[in-house]
Amino acid sequence: MDLSDLSSQAGEWLRGSGPMSDVVISSRIRLARNLAGYPFLTRADNDQRRELSDLIRGAITAVKGDGSLSYLDIDKLGEMDRQLLVERHLISKQHAEGEGDRGLALSPGETEAVMVNEEDHLRIQVLRSGLQIEDCWTRIDELDNRLGGELEYAFDSTLGYLTACPTNVGTGMRVSVMLHLPGMRITEELPKMFAAAKELRLAVRGLYGEGTEATGDFYQISNQTTLGRGEQDLLGQFGHEIIPRFVEYEHRAREALCDQKQVMLDDKVHRALGVLRTARQISSEETLYLLSHVRLGVNLGRIRGVPLEVINELFLLTQPAHLQRIRGQKLEEQARRVARAEFVRSRLSASPGQ
Amino acid sequence: MDLSDLSSQAGEWLRGSGPMSDVVISSRIRLARNLAGYPFLTRADNDQRRELSDLIRGAITAVKGDGSLSYLDIDKLGEMDRQLLVERHLISKQHAEGEGDRGLALSPGETEAVMVNEEDHLRIQVLRSGLQIEDCWTRIDELDNRLGGELEYAFDSTLGYLTACPTNVGTGMRVSVMLHLPGMRITEELPKMFAAAKELRLAVRGLYGEGTEATGDFYQISNQTTLGRGEQDLLGQFGHEIIPRFVEYEHRAREALCDQKQVMLDDKVHRALGVLRTARQISSEETLYLLSHVRLGVNLGRIRGVPLEVINELFLLTQPAHLQRIRGQKLEEQARRVARAEFVRSRLSASPGQ
Repeated sequence: MDLSDLSSQAGEWLRGSGPMSDVVISSRIRLARNLAGYPFLTRADNDQRRELSDLIRGAITAVKGDGSLSYLDIDKLGEMDRQLLVERHLISKQHAEGEGDRGLALSPGETEAVMVNEEDHLRIQVLRSGLQIEDCWTRIDELDNRLGGELEYAFDSTLGYLTACPTNVGTGMRVSVMLHLPGMRITEELPKMFAAAKELRLAVRGLYGEGTEATGDFYQISNQTTLGRGEQDLLGQFGHEIIPRFVEYEHRAREALCDQKQVMLDDKVHRALGVLRTARQISSEETLYLLSHVRLGVNLGRIRGVPLEVINELFLLTQPAHLQRIRGQKLEEQARRVARAEFVRSRLSASPGQ
Repeated sequence: MDLSDLSSQAGEWLRGSGPMSDVVISSRIRLARNLAGYPFLTRADNDQRRELSDLIRGAITAVKGDGSLSYLDIDKLGEMDRQLLVERHLISKQHAEGEGDRGLALSPGETEAVMVNEEDHLRIQVLRSGLQIEDCWTRIDELDNRLGGELEYAFDSTLGYLTACPTNVGTGMRVSVMLHLPGMRITEELPKMFAAAKELRLAVRGLYGEGTEATGDFYQISNQTTLGRGEQDLLGQFGHEIIPRFVEYEHRAREALCDQKQVMLDDKVHRALGVLRTARQISSEETLYLLSHVRLGVNLGRIRGVPLEVINELFLLTQPAHLQRIRGQKLEEQARRVARAEFVRSRLSASPGQ
């Protein structure tokens, strides 16, 4: 697989299609699995890591004989390519920065991925645009079952799947959605959402997972299954009750803006577009901030003539590794700021009267 | 004279023509004069104020029989019209807010004006675009001589012209220029200019005189003639040495920006234009700030397709009283912010690719 295929378009997670895609950017389920008879990775030596990755790679080839999961040796990739995969939400930061034999199996549409030798021996992930948790589940359950047919998972009849971190023991599942919540940020209602999430024992994270800022008004909401709770139950509640409720909060905030603060809203979204169309240097952070406003403006019909796909793509393609891939060269920070502004202008070139 | 003639165009002080007009917005000389046999205004009663204004008005009519100086009763104008004259630098804030009989005689091009019953009985003013101090002097000296032929000025052979404030005694003259110094502000070299001004005993004020902020990067530099110093000497030094030196400082700062910080400069000036073209509500202060950047960009050829006259006009026409005059109605602050943004957009409507 050639990574340059990835760098010029948005990944599945930002395609912007799927149910409730005005608020729900993407849905994701990941399963943590480990192989019986091998130590967890914190205690595995280099030989064991290699054996593990060989075994898992073999299993992947066996279940996906059509080559629909390509395998990448993460440890053989350059820093920029690893960063590219992080920016696309295909591997974690830890996986990018880790040591030793490790890999990623990836489907062409980026909807399925398996991290090999990250925190657990396997981390299977299915990602879809919009709110599509059941579809994620159908796909990941099938992939998990087929891999489980080739590999012997570490499983305890009482505890369930054994994982490196105790919080994952049981189903080993985490379900998460990426929400775009500019309306609630502008109306200052995010604390309400955070409180509800806390009540429901949900984790709220930023754009790039744990410990990152909610840049671009993106919030990743995830639920960790716990011991003794069935996957189906959890998924049903998450996808049919909890997330639709958050979406409803955001819709109400947006309606309030349109009804009561139309001038302020229009001012924000049009200024954001104006700056993106004219800046000669711009940071990644400011770009996300402004794109978030423009996305809101497009979604609410306040901005016309700017395709939503262009905005969705820009969120990703203006990130450092993507930008350098597109330019075909390594760029220092200031050069990236200039290249980013040029790229954004070229994608958003103004039409008359806007 | 109908003030609505004034509200739709820039006054002389912002025409943007004349020598060194990329930096020197306007030149102005004012003379303070009082009539013999009358107390200064702080001690004059209402009858005396009326007598004074009748006398002075009569003299103005006598010397300008062609009606080239129209007379306005300031005390009969509404608040908005008085504010309009302040925004055009034709009367002082004090004159607008004062009490009792007071007036303004004004030439159609706004190059000549006489404030009647401000701090002194007469304040004669000549204003020109760009650096034209000698021309100001020729004109004001002639007007002063002709008025002096009709009126008996309070004059002491030792002290010179007697004025209400001791600092004006002598020539009663103040010469000032309005400079546009965005380059030095961006390169952070203004302290150098302030130090030089202090050394030369020059006063530096903001856009609307004493105690106002230097909004829009406009600085008013003025020299007060002192007792025992000839007008001609002072004017020569001010117009041929001091101001050209400040202009040179600003030119060097602009060159440094073009040579060494081109990206930063382009970023600032284009963003400023981008925001002005897209904002849906904007304060007077932010408008001045952004217009200042755009003016710099146009002057340096970094922004094309935006006529300098449009920018110069906008500095004035976006001020509160002008804006309300143009709209033909009184507007509260928030309504003004919206009207201002609309007006700016209409004047700066984008052409493709900008």
